[in-house]
Amino acid sequence: MKGWLRVVGLGPGDPALLTPEARAALEAAEDVVGYGPYLARWPERPGQARHPSDNRAERERAALALTLAQQGRGVALVSGGDPGIFGMASTLFEVIAENPDWAGLDVAVLPGITALSAAAARLGAPLGHDFCAISLSDNLKPWAVIEARLAAAARAGFVIALYNPLSRARPWQLGAAFAELRRHLPAETPLAFARAVRRPEERLSLTTLGEADPGRADMATLVIVGSAESRLVPRPGALPWFYTPRRSGSPASPAARRRSQ
Amino acid sequence: MKGWLRVVGLGPGDPALLTPEARAALEAAEDVVGYGPYLARWPERPGQARHPSDNRAERERAALALTLAQQGRGVALVSGGDPGIFGMASTLFEVIAENPDWAGLDVAVLPGITALSAAAARLGAPLGHDFCAISLSDNLKPWAVIEARLAAAARAGFVIALYNPLSRARPWQLGAAFAELRRHLPAETPLAFARAVRRPEERLSLTTLGEADPGRADMATLVIVGSAESRLVPRPGALPWFYTPRRSGSPASPAARRRSQ
Repeated sequence: MKGWLRVVGLGPGDPALLTPEARAALEAAEDVVGYGPYLARWPERPGQARHPSDNRAERERAALALTLAQQGRGVALVSGGDPGIFGMASTLFEVIAENPDWAGLDVAVLPGITALSAAAARLGAPLGHDFCAISLSDNLKPWAVIEARLAAAARAGFVIALYNPLSRARPWQLGAAFAELRRHLPAETPLAFARAVRRPEERLSLTTLGEADPGRADMATLVIVGSAESRLVPRPGALPWFYTPRRSGSPASPAARRRSQ
Repeated sequence: MKGWLRVVGLGPGDPALLTPEARAALEAAEDVVGYGPYLARWPERPGQARHPSDNRAERERAALALTLAQQGRGVALVSGGDPGIFGMASTLFEVIAENPDWAGLDVAVLPGITALSAAAARLGAPLGHDFCAISLSDNLKPWAVIEARLAAAARAGFVIALYNPLSRARPWQLGAAFAELRRHLPAETPLAFARAVRRPEERLSLTTLGEADPGRADMATLVIVGSAESRLVPRPGALPWFYTPRRSGSPASPAARRRSQ
């Protein structure tokens, strides 16, 4: 019996956003492995073994999934959003790189809707043109690197999506990020807090970079910071649409002039 | 009868990656509006009107979809990949911003799997940590802005996904982008050409920034340029896995030392 391992992107949590491919892999798996709260999104099935683990135990989780596949089992290793975007895929290949025995296994990554896509869709079209995604977690990289990336992205006119903005163990990072961004972008730059998007506890709010309160974010929040060209479109009975025009960075635009001074 | 408009992300083209939400909107629509080749991915249905348009006619397409919704029709405006990532969503809100009458319509964006997620999944985990997405099309922004973004992203250690790398009307831009990136990144930086990912004509290839030939790309290609930390993991009978470790940008790493000199 030949084992296999699929790294399955669960998307934001709403079953309407789970791809048919991901669902098929979850249905076919003999073992489902993952961080407890993500695993809990997939209902128990008769005959299917479940292996929940803690948030930080990423390498152990990947090694368990690989071990089971090597034993001939069909394994789904679940990841919130898209496994390739701050999810389990990178950890998995790190572990395979250190254990070449595992490089011959039948492994595939099944993409999912990442928080950035889901949040942008609910807000309008904030990504609009060129954008970047930065994790504010400094568990795996020095804060100075993060700060340099924030500055580079803001100065170059990227829209910025901030993953992992805040946690109990990392209380000050988002405030420091806002302070750094305020050095390079106008105070009126639109900024969104998109919490638990496409889950029952979803909460969206719009503000500006100048007024953004880091206390509104938590681990389930994605923060989107516009570029100097981003705009709001009022609409009746709902948050304004937040969008970034495709045409951007023209030297003739007031924003570009402001940036170049 | 109250009209509605859904901007529907078709994903890369494989029906296994079309979300249930997107499929339901396509099935419910009375009118389907979109760029011809994208529209062709959705089979004709009895009683459903189809409105194909040319590639450049984005504003006219958005206006047509809004007009139909205002007339009380149920409208799906299709977009390849994710509408919010170099897709139709930004154009739509630009057009709404200029016609406030349309701001009260029932409009929603339905996210899709973007090329960046689909390509990364097939290659391994090249995005790994912080990344950015840049369109090389200079139809809507000056080339100098694009070049500055490439330089900023490379120097700051972002993995870089290049959308719209090349077309008949834009033959030299990808070569110029590689030349700019070579000024900031090691020649051995892994680089992937991911063409028509998850469609029958899919073609993946791996090379390095130093050896990358722009002639291998076309309009259906996404180019992913690693960071200085990106790695390859050989595997039997297939392309090596291309991944970027989560732990990155450490001042102690050789790559970071090289960048800081």
